[in-house]
Formats: sequence, structure tokens, C-alpha cells
Amino acid sequence: MSKLAIDDAGLDGYIAACRNEYEAALRALVETPTVSADPARAADVRRGATLAAELIRQCGGEAQIVETGGHPLVLGRLGSGNTKRGIAVYNHLDVQPAEEPEWQHDPFRLRIDGERYVGRGTTDDKGPALAALFAARYAVQHGATADVQFIWEFEEEIGSPHFDAAIAVQAKRLPVDAVLVSDTVWIARGIPAIAYGLRGLQGARLVLETGVKDTHSGLTGGAARNAVGELAQVLSRCCNAATGRALIPGFYDDAAPLAADEVREFLASGFSVAEFQRAHGLRSLRTQDAETVVRRIWGEPTFEVHGIAGGYGGPGIKTIVPQRAEAKVSMRLVPNQEPARMLRLLTAFVQSINPDIRVEDAGALPWYLGQRSGPYAEAARRAIAYAFGKSPAFVREGGSIGAVVAMERHLHAPVLLMGLSLPEHGYHAPNEYFDWGQAAGGMKAFVRFFAEAGGIGARQRPWQPRAV
Amino acid sequence: MSKLAIDDAGLDGYIAACRNEYEAALRALVETPTVSADPARAADVRRGATLAAELIRQCGGEAQIVETGGHPLVLGRLGSGNTKRGIAVYNHLDVQPAEEPEWQHDPFRLRIDGERYVGRGTTDDKGPALAALFAARYAVQHGATADVQFIWEFEEEIGSPHFDAAIAVQAKRLPVDAVLVSDTVWIARGIPAIAYGLRGLQGARLVLETGVKDTHSGLTGGAARNAVGELAQVLSRCCNAATGRALIPGFYDDAAPLAADEVREFLASGFSVAEFQRAHGLRSLRTQDAETVVRRIWGEPTFEVHGIAGGYGGPGIKTIVPQRAEAKVSMRLVPNQEPARMLRLLTAFVQSINPDIRVEDAGALPWYLGQRSGPYAEAARRAIAYAFGKSPAFVREGGSIGAVVAMERHLHAPVLLMGLSLPEHGYHAPNEYFDWGQAAGGMKAFVRFFAEAGGIGARQRPWQPRAV
Repeated sequence: MSKLAIDDAGLDGYIAACRNEYEAALRALVETPTVSADPARAADVRRGATLAAELIRQCGGEAQIVETGGHPLVLGRLGSGNTKRGIAVYNHLDVQPAEEPEWQHDPFRLRIDGERYVGRGTTDDKGPALAALFAARYAVQHGATADVQFIWEFEEEIGSPHFDAAIAVQAKRLPVDAVLVSDTVWIARGIPAIAYGLRGLQGARLVLETGVKDTHSGLTGGAARNAVGELAQVLSRCCNAATGRALIPGFYDDAAPLAADEVREFLASGFSVAEFQRAHGLRSLRTQDAETVVRRIWGEPTFEVHGIAGGYGGPGIKTIVPQRAEAKVSMRLVPNQEPARMLRLLTAFVQSINPDIRVEDAGALPWYLGQRSGPYAEAARRAIAYAFGKSPAFVREGGSIGAVVAMERHLHAPVLLMGLSLPEHGYHAPNEYFDWGQAAGGMKAFVRFFAEAGGIGARQRPWQPRAV
Repeated sequence: MSKLAIDDAGLDGYIAACRNEYEAALRALVETPTVSADPARAADVRRGATLAAELIRQCGGEAQIVETGGHPLVLGRLGSGNTKRGIAVYNHLDVQPAEEPEWQHDPFRLRIDGERYVGRGTTDDKGPALAALFAARYAVQHGATADVQFIWEFEEEIGSPHFDAAIAVQAKRLPVDAVLVSDTVWIARGIPAIAYGLRGLQGARLVLETGVKDTHSGLTGGAARNAVGELAQVLSRCCNAATGRALIPGFYDDAAPLAADEVREFLASGFSVAEFQRAHGLRSLRTQDAETVVRRIWGEPTFEVHGIAGGYGGPGIKTIVPQRAEAKVSMRLVPNQEPARMLRLLTAFVQSINPDIRVEDAGALPWYLGQRSGPYAEAARRAIAYAFGKSPAFVREGGSIGAVVAMERHLHAPVLLMGLSLPEHGYHAPNEYFDWGQAAGGMKAFVRFFAEAGGIGARQRPWQPRAV
């Protein structure tokens, strides 16, 4: 299969031996607050890129910081550089903001609590990135035939605005057979999953201003327009909050339905509604029916309000008529929903109800549908089974990774989504964590994947994305 | 008419001469941030009470600070103390919060800009309070037969939670024939108004929690409940935001309609929709029809959202499913709507839609309907005409002053609402201001009222509140 014959005991020893090094690197990354959404953190993001390149070099690779027009990209390579074969590994090293009051410690200090690594970005996506880096070092040092290219992004959490253009330019320098992305979540601890699909996203800000200042509801109430009330009304017309069903005309027109065999595999994956609810800390769900839940989170589009603000927010009550209200919303999209068309539908519907509401484009990401079978999918399946003792389910993921579609298109290679995160790790949540068990298992799985993928044979160009 | 024969030129001279003193007193009050809603300001409120008592003493009166169980009350008296006759003057010296970003300078520094006094509380209600104090000094020094009692509250902006009990205890020490309240707003500059009615108020907080932490909409979106979406839906079911019509079952059942002659006087008052809109800085109104506007702001109940918050509020978009949302709302009430019943109706309706929403009582104020005629009303009418050269319209006011009903009940005296504020002064708004013209005219009107009211004759007990 591969020039890399895995010495199981040797690999286990390597992984155990590099735990301190892994934790030190994770600490350095977590304590560099690479919050891409916050302009005030731009210098931290750049420090993060410098640090990331240095980590690749410390593992014996070469790395460079590539300017994109926004936050930079780090490209690295471990291996001889003499081969025309390569596996690319994509991770993102930017993180979500961490302003939630529920954080029990500084989110930008790594707290090691036994096996747990608590801090912003530990599971999304710095911990998995380092697992792939340390696996690549082992593979390359032990005779892997394929180089491992690293593509580390710093704009994933803001929708990868510059990634497509940057990777298009860099594509000729990245002769890869397959792309490994580690930024997805298992069904549950002990129940691994490989995602072959991602939802897309269209974000928007809805802003309404009905006056130049808040007024006294005793003086104007009844005649003055209430910006919060009007915005709430429009939001409630966009989506039935009880069921999640979007009410925007045309919303579901292009949405490709799930195939029957996909739903069967979802239900056979080990997914449990009760476990899902517990892992995410949800008091109740819109439904307890397992098929409805997996369809909704993996295979159906959504309309979601992410935040709303307007009027008085201080202590007590202030009897104003608010003149301004704003909501941040997004639509998660499935094949074949085109983000720009969905934004047009949203804008037209909102303004048909309330022409004074401004609808601002807050970024878009395309949906993705990859391979459920074929040599690389099989290699990934065997790698997970080898490392974790259980074959992964092939499911879709409800999130969006803008880079995936760009890499498939520009690198002409299949993309494999081998995530290491668990639902309870808390993507985007306060007290986000990762754990050594997933990191160590991930290293083992990635080594096996690099070993197999290096031996899968001649690169099968031209590689065609799957049609829906 | 009165023992106080007004020397017009002497009064004008007195007013002109006390401008510096007035401004110094207003500065001292404004620069004591008596924000009753903010627990962190409790010491400032108490400093405000001490300062207020001192101001009364500086005018030759006596004053004391009365404990209420909440913020204190200041009671003062100018006059001989030997008469059993008295006019009470009510003002409140607490203020609204001032967190609006539109403030162009520190709201708790008085900025004098020509005739204008800019700062939180200048028009609501510190400026009018001082106009009454300085008028009382002149009246008492020039032979008024009635003492002037001062009732200065520090909890008006939080719904006067302790006022009723405090004034009930103090009532025997306040033998008054009439109560003058200066905390209302004219139709427009040059168009004075005396209010004979006030709307009541029932406030509430609506709180929804659907989980223990925000979750990632890519992982949970579709199945997880969206607290902001659900709250928006409930708000939109409570009130048609486009028209302001409340949709809560039973909401209008008890609301007494306006009499035809009231509406005629409203329309003859000089009220202008265009001027109203301009003064409050409103881009558009729910209607441009003058009768509909005056009915809605003075004579009909409302359901208003004062503020809403939930989910992510930082820069950019954060794709979470928010687990908590909160809205502050109130219902303005008209005769004969009882606040407690309205809260029950609201709670039952909200929870019939969404049983997980907590509805918390945020305070209540009763509606008020006073006299449009009679000797004190006529004295007030003549006082305004004397000072400002134009007879006031008798209208209702859409706001609420909880103390009014309590004083009517416990002091057994009619309450006259002789406000000095103008719509553009901005009650509860950023860059609130008052002006010397209204202050000076107010002093003149109040002197005349004290003169006339002292001569109206024997106190007409038992005084009966008007039935609707």
C-alpha cells in the first residue's frame, strides 16, 4: 500500500512522547487571540500567522505567510519537495469572539484540566490543526511518499472572504492528490463521523431606523413607529420560530432533497437525539423525532437570528419608543441553493413588508457535497477505524467551511472532512475545549491516512466535483 | 382676589435678577446624577436629596428628607406655617438613565448654550422644579396667603414604588387646597397646554431561556430552539407593529373612549402632526391623520417594546443559535384599565403562545383623570395666559406620573398639571434640554397661580375625584 509501514508501537510511543510539545504549541496558539471578526485583533491575527509558520518550521517543514488582502494565509510543506505527489491539510487558525459571560476563565489563556484543553479555539480549530501537523512530521520522517502541504487560513470564521482568490493564485504550487480538512464534529464521543457535505451560508444584517433619537413613550407612544416592534414583526414573518420553517417565498425552491440512502445512513450513524440535546446544553428541541432532527441539522436549510439589539438595555425599564433596531441573521443553505439568490429573496421579502429596513450582505459561503466512496474516502474510513477502533459514519455537516469549495475547484482534488471534535467541545460556545484523547487518536488516524493516501496511486485528473 | 397684588414690573425684575442663581442651582442638580433606575447611583440620589433640601432652605423655607424604604422624598415649605391654607407643588428630581450614544456631551454636566440648558434632567424635571421654587419665594415674600409646600420625589422615573405609602403617612402634615404638578409638556413652543389626564402604565420583562449556552448554528441550527426568534414571534403577536394596535385578547375591553368634546378640544389645541413629528425627530409616523394621532397619544392604550436583547452583538456576524432573549415592554393604560388586570392578560397571552417565557412585573402606575374646569383649573388657565400671553389648551397627557393619583387620594385635593416643557426638549431623550424662556415664563405663571389660588377661598372638602 505505502512506503510507510506503520510500526504501531513506535507510532503510539511517538504520540505519547509529543504530548508536552503538543500542549506547548496549543498554548501558544490559544494565547494568541486570533479573532478574525474583530478589527482590533488584526495584529494578534498576524502574530498568530507568524507563530503558525514557526511551528511548521520547528517540525522540519518550510512555511511562508501569504498576503491575501485581508488576514494572511500560511502555506507550509513537510517532505522532500522532490515528489509531485502531495496531500494537502487544511485547518483554520482564526477563532470566534469569546465575549460570552459564561466563560469560567480567560478564554485566551489555555487551561489544562486533566485531559481537557479549555480555551477559545482549542477544538475549532487549533487543536485539530496541531494533531495533523504532528502526524505529518511522523509520516514524513518514516518514509511517506507524499509530501504534506499545509493550508492554514485565518479568515474562516468571517466567511473566508479572500481565500478563493488566494488559493487560485497558489494552486500551481500545490500539486495535491487529495485535501484533508479537519474542522468537523463527530456524532458523539466514541462515534466518529466523516462529513461528505456542508451547508452553505448567506448572512445578513437587518437595520431599521425610524427616527433620529429614542422618544418618550408617554409623549409619542401610539403614533411613533417602534423600530424594535417592527423588526420583530418582520423576523417573525421570515421564519416560524416554533418549527424553524422559513416563510420567505421561494426559500425552499432550489433545495435538493436528501436521498433515501443518506437518511438511512444518518439514522444508522449512532446519532441520538437525547445525546445531541445534552451535548449542546439545550433545554428542549423543536422536535424529538430523530429523522426530523438529522434532516434539519444536516440536510435542510435554515433561517436563524443570531442576535438582536434595539432600545434600552440598562437596569430597570426605560419607557422609550426605540428608533433603531438591528438583527444579525443567516440562512444555512443546502444543494442547490445559491447564496446570492437567497439574499435577493430575503431582501425582497423583508422590504415588501417594511421598505425602511436595510438588508446588508454579511457574507456568503457555498454549500458543498463531496464523495461518500472511492479510494480516498475508503482510506479515511480505514484510518479512523485504525485509530479509534470504530468505523466512521458518513454524514453531512450542518456547518459551512468556505475554503472547501474553493480548494475542490482550484486544486482539482477531492476533499475529505476528517474532523476530531466532539459535540460537547462546544464549537463557538463559551468554555470551548478539546481533549488529548481526540488529539492523540487524530494523530494516529492522520498518520495512517498519509500512509495510505501516498500509495493510492496515480493522481486521477481531471477530478470532477460531484453533481447533485 | 388675593392678598398678593402682583407688581408686573417688579416680578419681571425679580425673575431677570435670579437668572444666575437659577442656573447655578440647575447646574448643581444636573451635575448630581440622580438616576433612580441604577442601583449604582443610589448614593448620588441621596446627595441629590440633600442638595434639594438645601436649595429650599436657601430660599427661606424649611425642608426635611423623609425616608420611604427606597430613595428618599424631600418635603419643604415656604411661608409662615401659621396658615392652614396651602398649595402643594410636586416635582421629581430623579432622572432617566443617559446611556444613549447620541449625547454630544457628558449628560451630567450642565452645558449652557445661549438660552438653552442641556443635560439629563434639565426639562424632566429639575428645571421646572426650580422655576416653581423661585416663584414660591417671590409669592411668599410678597404676601401670599397660602403657604407653598414642596413635595420632591426621587423615584418617579422608576414608577414611584414608595410614594403612595409615604404620602399617606405625611398627608396630615400637608393641609393643602390644591396640588400643582409641573412635569408635563406643551403642544409646541408658544402653544401652552394644561393636562387634565394621564395614562397609566404596566411594565413587564419578557425573558426566554432555551438552553444553558449559545450553540453553533452549523451544528444545531434547525433543531435547536432560537430564543430570539421565539421572543420576536411573541412580540409580533402582542401588537401589530405597523398600526400599534394591541392584539392581546381583552386588551381594549375596559378602555373608556374619549368624549366627543375632548377630541374637539384636542384638535383645537394647536396640535400639528408635522410639528409633533419634527419636535420628536421622527422620520415617519404610523399615521398622518391628526385626530388619529391625538387619540392614540393621549386617549388610547398602547403596547410598546422599549428594548430587546439576545444573542451576539459584537462586530460582524457570529453564527450562533442564541439561547436567551429578553424584552422590556409596557402597556400605557387609559381609564378604566387596571394595571394588574392588564398584566394578567399579557402574561396569559404570552404563555399561551410560549409557556417558557417568564413574564416579570416591572412596575405599574394608575391612569389619572382630573378636572377640566372649576376654580383651580381657571386659576391655572389665567396664570398661563398672564405669563405667556396665550391661553392654554386643556388636553390629556400620554405619560404617567404615579404620584398624581396618590396625592389626589391622600391629600384630598385637586391636582393641576401645569407643565413647562416643550416637545423638542426631549423627555427621556439624548441631549435633553430646557430653556430660560420657559423657566422665566414658568416663574411668572406660578407666582400668578399662587396669588390666585391663595384667594380662591375656603377649602372645599371633601374633594371627590372625577368619575369616568
